[in-house]
Amino acid sequence: MRQQFQQDLHSISDQLVEMTRLASSAMVRATTALLDADVHLAESVIESDKAIDAARETLDTLAVDLLARQAPVASDLRMVVTAMRVSADLERMGDLARHVAKVARLRYPDSAVPPECRATIQEMGHVAESLVTKVGSIIADQDLDAARQLEADDDVMDALHRDLYSQLLDGKWQHGTEAAVDLTLLGRYYERYGDHAVSVALRVIYLVTGEYESLDRALEHDGREE
Amino acid sequence: MRQQFQQDLHSISDQLVEMTRLASSAMVRATTALLDADVHLAESVIESDKAIDAARETLDTLAVDLLARQAPVASDLRMVVTAMRVSADLERMGDLARHVAKVARLRYPDSAVPPECRATIQEMGHVAESLVTKVGSIIADQDLDAARQLEADDDVMDALHRDLYSQLLDGKWQHGTEAAVDLTLLGRYYERYGDHAVSVALRVIYLVTGEYESLDRALEHDGREE
Repeated sequence: MRQQFQQDLHSISDQLVEMTRLASSAMVRATTALLDADVHLAESVIESDKAIDAARETLDTLAVDLLARQAPVASDLRMVVTAMRVSADLERMGDLARHVAKVARLRYPDSAVPPECRATIQEMGHVAESLVTKVGSIIADQDLDAARQLEADDDVMDALHRDLYSQLLDGKWQHGTEAAVDLTLLGRYYERYGDHAVSVALRVIYLVTGEYESLDRALEHDGREE
Repeated sequence: MRQQFQQDLHSISDQLVEMTRLASSAMVRATTALLDADVHLAESVIESDKAIDAARETLDTLAVDLLARQAPVASDLRMVVTAMRVSADLERMGDLARHVAKVARLRYPDSAVPPECRATIQEMGHVAESLVTKVGSIIADQDLDAARQLEADDDVMDALHRDLYSQLLDGKWQHGTEAAVDLTLLGRYYERYGDHAVSVALRVIYLVTGEYESLDRALEHDGREE
């Protein structure tokens, strides 16, 4: 029974890591679709979000089944509950990549991103990829140092988000209101993607250490820069 | 033991209903702060979001404690797991009200909302209040009819969201890029607030009926109009 439980926990952990791969691939491809005005790639990101939703459903079913069959307590229970919350964060990251892809599709054959904002958006895509890749390792290895570092890593995303808004608001914006609306939403999608990555890291810290403070910060994370 | 469990479930349900009241009050006050450029009211909304976060933490602690002590199965287990997810939705709705209040504070002593958008924002505030009030009844009474109706109720919010974007994008916008950025974010905050309300309703349907389709739709709900 105990051995079966450990196997199930490993399986849940593996599935969470697989979800980080899907969420990473989605945001990388969405960013390319956006910058290259590639409508087929955008469609493929939108379509593949179903796989992330299905992964979450599979994982949550397994977790609830585990609660029912094994009635875990203490740290085992904490692990299962945390896994369900982490799967919600990762599924949401997939949604945000899908939103980026939808902006790309909406503006095709144009690109939604004016030339002077391309570098910032590209960098936001890179940071998003880096954050979610680290999250994969943090889940797989329960690496506390990397988890504690992730908030600082996400500061780079917040700085890029501020840069983007500065470009919109410096008084020299010449691309009209529609492009401003698109860029506002895109900035928010990347920033929220980073927030969810940090939220996962803080949940893993809570899982390993039992530090409630981390959990508080996971709940509080959104919107620090506003 | 069984009687204690039923009492605990009632207590969880009461606390969720209390969270809907807090989330409602927050969005009502945030909307007033926004339209009246009332910085003190905005500050009070931002400050009171801590109470919603604390309510979620209390509720989640009780839920995990219940899982550990009582090891519920079947519909009892589903009830506890659903309560944890609903508390996450309601906590997020509080965050979104806080975001609205932060826009109000940022633009004080001006109002972030130009005259021709006031009616739309005011109506979004009313719809938000109506949705979350219905969610409170849906949780308290497990009212399936009201829950099934809530998606249609939220269509009104989505239509207002489209109206707002039409005002931004009809080519006659004369309030500059900063106001356009503010209105884009505000529209998104109200729309997401409505999405989370619908998500709660669908979770209650799943809870009562066990219809997986509702749960799928709860996961899928975001961004239908994009």
